[in-house]
Amino acid sequence: MEAEAQPLIDHLSLKPNQEFFNSPTSSGTAPFLAYQGKHESCNITIVTNGKDAVHGTGVDNVGTIPAALATYLALDKLNSNPDKKVDLLINAGTCGGFKKMGAEIGDVYLTTAVANHDRRIIIPGSGFEEYGIGKVESTTVSSLAKEINAKLGVCTTGNSLDAHDVDHKLMQENEASVKDMEAAAIAWSCEMHQTPHIGIKVVTDIVDGDKPSHEEFMENLGTAAQSLQGALPKVIEYICGKGHDEL
Amino acid sequence: MEAEAQPLIDHLSLKPNQEFFNSPTSSGTAPFLAYQGKHESCNITIVTNGKDAVHGTGVDNVGTIPAALATYLALDKLNSNPDKKVDLLINAGTCGGFKKMGAEIGDVYLTTAVANHDRRIIIPGSGFEEYGIGKVESTTVSSLAKEINAKLGVCTTGNSLDAHDVDHKLMQENEASVKDMEAAAIAWSCEMHQTPHIGIKVVTDIVDGDKPSHEEFMENLGTAAQSLQGALPKVIEYICGKGHDEL
Repeated sequence: MEAEAQPLIDHLSLKPNQEFFNSPTSSGTAPFLAYQGKHESCNITIVTNGKDAVHGTGVDNVGTIPAALATYLALDKLNSNPDKKVDLLINAGTCGGFKKMGAEIGDVYLTTAVANHDRRIIIPGSGFEEYGIGKVESTTVSSLAKEINAKLGVCTTGNSLDAHDVDHKLMQENEASVKDMEAAAIAWSCEMHQTPHIGIKVVTDIVDGDKPSHEEFMENLGTAAQSLQGALPKVIEYICGKGHDEL
Repeated sequence: MEAEAQPLIDHLSLKPNQEFFNSPTSSGTAPFLAYQGKHESCNITIVTNGKDAVHGTGVDNVGTIPAALATYLALDKLNSNPDKKVDLLINAGTCGGFKKMGAEIGDVYLTTAVANHDRRIIIPGSGFEEYGIGKVESTTVSSLAKEINAKLGVCTTGNSLDAHDVDHKLMQENEASVKDMEAAAIAWSCEMHQTPHIGIKVVTDIVDGDKPSHEEFMENLGTAAQSLQGALPKVIEYICGKGHDEL
């Protein structure tokens, strides 16, 4: 979300690129925003999903659809120069955490894999069930996790902030440590561009706790955002100039 | 899905355009397919969402994410010539029907509006709840409905083939006559391109009936596909050459 991205944009002195998503050759009006600049030897683009203009709510675009589209369009543009393909896509944001998997509020997680928990397509033997779950492995970043003192775990994705019994069953089957609303969709678009990807997610609420997600989410968003802002510059510092096998 | 599209592709003698989604300037490998040709004075492009290569299941890509992306990319390409913008996007496919709203197996529905039932983002007063439901009006096509003897109703969209209690509550709040897995996502991408859109959906199973959706779906897919194949040429025949106010 916009408010989460701004501190890093400022920290890295990135500049908005108005034509990134809506170039003169593009006929649509994508709501997404891009900020670009350099950190040492690395080119950095931060993408946010912008505001909802379609439904007139003006809220930040959240969930799988804008995330998949923004990722696909950004990678299509950035990878179009074969000498400057994207080395790593980082999905940075907040998440719910599962206390039974050891998650606590404020924890920073790096994803080992992502999967969906709200795409139930049970036609036995067809392959549709596996497609619906859509598990994708993340790039291995165990050295990075040690460096920034992050936990490692699976992120399960769904388009709802809350979760009911059927969701809980599938989230458990996905062996999730954290839950978000975008990671599996972002990974899907990365896979189509053969772009390595990880998620860095900070816990704002406990999914298997007593409090309703939205209350805890609003309560802890500020703290979690600070935690994310503390971690992201370290991630970029550590990654920049390293090969994938050093992460 | 591929099997549903093929009869119309044959009927209209459309030709595959291999470079439509994966042009030399595109760096990704979109799985989507496009077939193009003319019917009388109308240029027609049929888009299908292709097969899943990301998760290795090889099933047809279904659900909101591929649908939104394929629609966005197709409209971006087709609308890039300002003199040949897309007049109408038709989302054609199968759906579940609600018997309490009068739906029967084999019925052809034209959408009056679309909305989501699996994006619950309840943060009171924030606008996120309305964003999650994401209701979008379809182009008015009451004359067309009379012409092809179709029913009119709201289509509710979710990424699961089945539906549990929470889904049923939201589908009812959406005042849905039919349920699918793509319509609201397709409409969202159309809105960003200011492209008018309708859904034409044929009922394969009864959502509020006794049988599990997937059994009834597999049982009636053949009949429904025939019903769709009967209706689509009539739709194109009727629409071609008419203004939006004549539909």
